[in-house]
Amino acid sequence: MSGLSAGSPAVVLLSGGLDSATVLAVARRDGHSCHCLAFDYGQRHRHELACARRVASAQGAASFRVVTLGLREIGGSALTADIDVPKDRSDHDLSTGIPITYVPARNLTFLAIASGLAEVLGARAIYAGVNAVDYSGYPDCRPEFIASVERTIALGTRAGVEGESIEVRTPIIRMTKPEIIRLGVSLGVDYGLTSSCYDPTESGLACGHCDSCQIRRRGFAEAGVADPTRYAEDVRR
Amino acid sequence: MSGLSAGSPAVVLLSGGLDSATVLAVARRDGHSCHCLAFDYGQRHRHELACARRVASAQGAASFRVVTLGLREIGGSALTADIDVPKDRSDHDLSTGIPITYVPARNLTFLAIASGLAEVLGARAIYAGVNAVDYSGYPDCRPEFIASVERTIALGTRAGVEGESIEVRTPIIRMTKPEIIRLGVSLGVDYGLTSSCYDPTESGLACGHCDSCQIRRRGFAEAGVADPTRYAEDVRR
Repeated sequence: MSGLSAGSPAVVLLSGGLDSATVLAVARRDGHSCHCLAFDYGQRHRHELACARRVASAQGAASFRVVTLGLREIGGSALTADIDVPKDRSDHDLSTGIPITYVPARNLTFLAIASGLAEVLGARAIYAGVNAVDYSGYPDCRPEFIASVERTIALGTRAGVEGESIEVRTPIIRMTKPEIIRLGVSLGVDYGLTSSCYDPTESGLACGHCDSCQIRRRGFAEAGVADPTRYAEDVRR
Repeated sequence: MSGLSAGSPAVVLLSGGLDSATVLAVARRDGHSCHCLAFDYGQRHRHELACARRVASAQGAASFRVVTLGLREIGGSALTADIDVPKDRSDHDLSTGIPITYVPARNLTFLAIASGLAEVLGARAIYAGVNAVDYSGYPDCRPEFIASVERTIALGTRAGVEGESIEVRTPIIRMTKPEIIRLGVSLGVDYGLTSSCYDPTESGLACGHCDSCQIRRRGFAEAGVADPTRYAEDVRR
């Protein structure tokens, strides 16, 4: 997976995690020239930005941008405020209610900025690794929310006014984690470059116990794919 | 105009300009405890952030936040990229097409972050100084866009999922500039604290010639209200 794709431009939201790395591979398979957009929003897991840059490079993205976003001023989430990231919660906790790691209005904010970049680049598609299966507790991961964002973007952008739409494509929204991993492997994604952990060590090792680590671990196991993640506990041993 | 209002919390988008200062006064009149939100988005006219802080303080806001937003990474506007701000354009130019000072997806981005703050604060209203009369060329100032944002916020936030709505209130959306100024004067707004200029001098004097200065000047003249703006040319004389 190297070299630029020659097709029409698309904006791809890239977090450095497993899901968005897969979505970038889908956007390239769809023939787009991919302009990757990552956010430095004061997240605890800023290590993911380095991963995002490596993923974009490895997949031959046309460009990679990091936009700073002062969401710490807003607070309200374990990912951006001084609240502990929960560890070793049960499946039940994962599947009910809205998790404390939910960042208020994060996806709407990310998609809003992506629509601005799409306008500037003349892109007619935004790819986002939104997933409604593993993150059922996050209101801004639901398909009806994404459809509404798309309508709003059409009304609020130059492209929309000129009668052209900007599609918000969420190719993995209804996939389980093992399905996403198998898709990515079939498209040549190197998941060793990605990081999913909400609370990694300073050197970027995954904690292995936060919601996101648990979901990722189970995903590789259920997909029957070797997990390339470097967990802190394995390195300590 | 001093002291905190004791009512329910509302988020008020504050730019330091005339419109949003008026909207803050309306939110206070509506009985809200007002939490002001301004953005440092790499705008040329960053002087407006100091004005926003003064306006919030003078009107007894409950809080004032500046959220950093790296829109310069996106570019595409005379307000954030290295493009000259147009001066002394005719009325005709102002009323047709999308101006070069339009910042792609700015209002959607601002409202997205405001909805996040509203969630954190438990606010059920966001006040925004969007105006569809003077800024008819900006697609994200249209009432149908605002209505769509409101639906999207309802679908994407905890409040919406729990059956409570967050209203996006745009009390001046259909007002002319003289109407806005007369409303503000009736509510005690000190427009001397505000700045509308897209290209002020380093000491904060208005250029008097950009779109925004022209609209503001005409507004005061048509409202029959003395213009408290300090223009560079008056000070030079």
